[in-house]
Amino acid sequence: MNIRLLSLGFGNVGQALARMLAEKEATLRDNYDLTFAFSGIYTRTTGALSFPDGLSAGQLVALGWPLTAASPGVVAGPADPLEFIHTCQADAVLELSALDPMTGQPATDYIRTALRSGRHVVTANKGPIAHAYRELWALAAANGVRLRFESTVMDGTPIFGMAEASLPATDFAGFRGLLNSTSNYVLSLMAQGQTVEEGIAAAQRVGVAEANPAYDLEGWDASVKATVLANVLMGADLRPADVRREGLGAEAMRKAQAALLPGQTLKQVVEATREADGAVTARVRLAALPPGDFFAHLSGMETAVTLHTDTMRDLTIVEGEGDPG
Amino acid sequence: MNIRLLSLGFGNVGQALARMLAEKEATLRDNYDLTFAFSGIYTRTTGALSFPDGLSAGQLVALGWPLTAASPGVVAGPADPLEFIHTCQADAVLELSALDPMTGQPATDYIRTALRSGRHVVTANKGPIAHAYRELWALAAANGVRLRFESTVMDGTPIFGMAEASLPATDFAGFRGLLNSTSNYVLSLMAQGQTVEEGIAAAQRVGVAEANPAYDLEGWDASVKATVLANVLMGADLRPADVRREGLGAEAMRKAQAALLPGQTLKQVVEATREADGAVTARVRLAALPPGDFFAHLSGMETAVTLHTDTMRDLTIVEGEGDPG
Repeated sequence: MNIRLLSLGFGNVGQALARMLAEKEATLRDNYDLTFAFSGIYTRTTGALSFPDGLSAGQLVALGWPLTAASPGVVAGPADPLEFIHTCQADAVLELSALDPMTGQPATDYIRTALRSGRHVVTANKGPIAHAYRELWALAAANGVRLRFESTVMDGTPIFGMAEASLPATDFAGFRGLLNSTSNYVLSLMAQGQTVEEGIAAAQRVGVAEANPAYDLEGWDASVKATVLANVLMGADLRPADVRREGLGAEAMRKAQAALLPGQTLKQVVEATREADGAVTARVRLAALPPGDFFAHLSGMETAVTLHTDTMRDLTIVEGEGDPG
Repeated sequence: MNIRLLSLGFGNVGQALARMLAEKEATLRDNYDLTFAFSGIYTRTTGALSFPDGLSAGQLVALGWPLTAASPGVVAGPADPLEFIHTCQADAVLELSALDPMTGQPATDYIRTALRSGRHVVTANKGPIAHAYRELWALAAANGVRLRFESTVMDGTPIFGMAEASLPATDFAGFRGLLNSTSNYVLSLMAQGQTVEEGIAAAQRVGVAEANPAYDLEGWDASVKATVLANVLMGADLRPADVRREGLGAEAMRKAQAALLPGQTLKQVVEATREADGAVTARVRLAALPPGDFFAHLSGMETAVTLHTDTMRDLTIVEGEGDPG
């Protein structure tokens, strides 16, 4: 089967995906009977670029990025990305656009348009899943296409795929996670004696933290991820603002670090629980973890989630070297 | 779809499975269109018991165990379990028999017979997979049936299912794991000041350790599990005796515990690596883990494996409260 791809956004994630598809071309063809061809790429800087003859991942990598409408095999597409989604000859849309995670836009509109026009969608954007999971899932089902979003939480660590394929008929009573790398990297440096400002500066130098770290330190990134996990795994219908954010931010981190007892480790922890009435509640907080809690011993660059299940008790997945969260 | 089951062995695992199928009956029917009926059970103590009209998991649980050929709805089956596998009206065989993990028998013969007679097989026995994975996998494919063995390592933690469903086109360069609960439980008690003999006695009291703990402490259990992981995930063709067992056993544990430096934690660790020539080597050893290694902070009852992948870097799965390994 040949799958024609339209990529919305083509930054680090898209370029890394193209390299991986190129490296795995023989394996995908021989073991999975899958070939891939890029039909188009839309980015805010290049606009819509259409590849009428298709470009293999290897060809795309070899051509280098950015391309322009003057590059060989490339023609300009329509100015409106929604029109490009409709007209581009693609089977699947890779939704990798820059987005506002607090609104999920414009990615949610891109995904709606792609699903309605009968394209499968793979998105790395957590905003649309946090804000519109039920609607988008139903839209995919109604149009007979798939919606995949594994890389919205923990950089593609197979949480949703594992739950779907390998934990059938399983109820998730809750979860606990270290989901924001920036916060936990800064906290790990503070535990080594650095100030919160030094920790933030170091995180920015290694490329973990954004220029404005408040989105991470104040728990919004973790709230969006908690919403995705709760809505997908636990059937909840939360929005990021429903996640209780308790005692977060740089000043709270400073105070909590100073108040730690010997042996304790401070982490930004996400928790979700199904209450007695069936409702799901989620919160993000700074937790002083005792030495017996193995989450205390994960470095700041690792992310982790423990799923509380009724079939397999507690299952924890740890991502070895977390990308910036 | 209704799936008729023949269970070979019906001890703790089989009875727990029946309870779980009974509890999940509505979910499996409504969400997966699956119903299950037991057609027969063979155990060494009861012999072959055939249920001509089928027994639902709920009926089986309600009847209680053990059943006899005089129980309602039960008739005696043939004395030879291989003949029972051939003649029992079953779609899938649950292979849960007591076995010798060093030879994989009699479970391997049961599985061969079941696959050849066109039955799917689900086995909890690691011996057959460690000793005959390639043969059994090919036999299943040739007969158009499935062979599943998730519970051979880490009590059903979805390792093989996750790799198959969620890590396509992924190469596993190696793995590291804490796979034997008995050894690591005894080591955790030794770290608290108990002697190795006291640790073994405590492990036996809580039901973790066998009467003869040598199989666990000397690394054979871990070697069998390492073989399963290496052969299935890495395409190796090892046998348990190929796994290097280095400095194991009660006396080695005593000496290594006494020689630990401050902050170090002793664990029985499994490692497998693909060498430069492509061959896979595996070993089990006592490792003095530094405080920065989060494996050091897992309790003795947890099991864990870190998979070294080329697509997702390091992924670790931790089982919360390990059953006796």
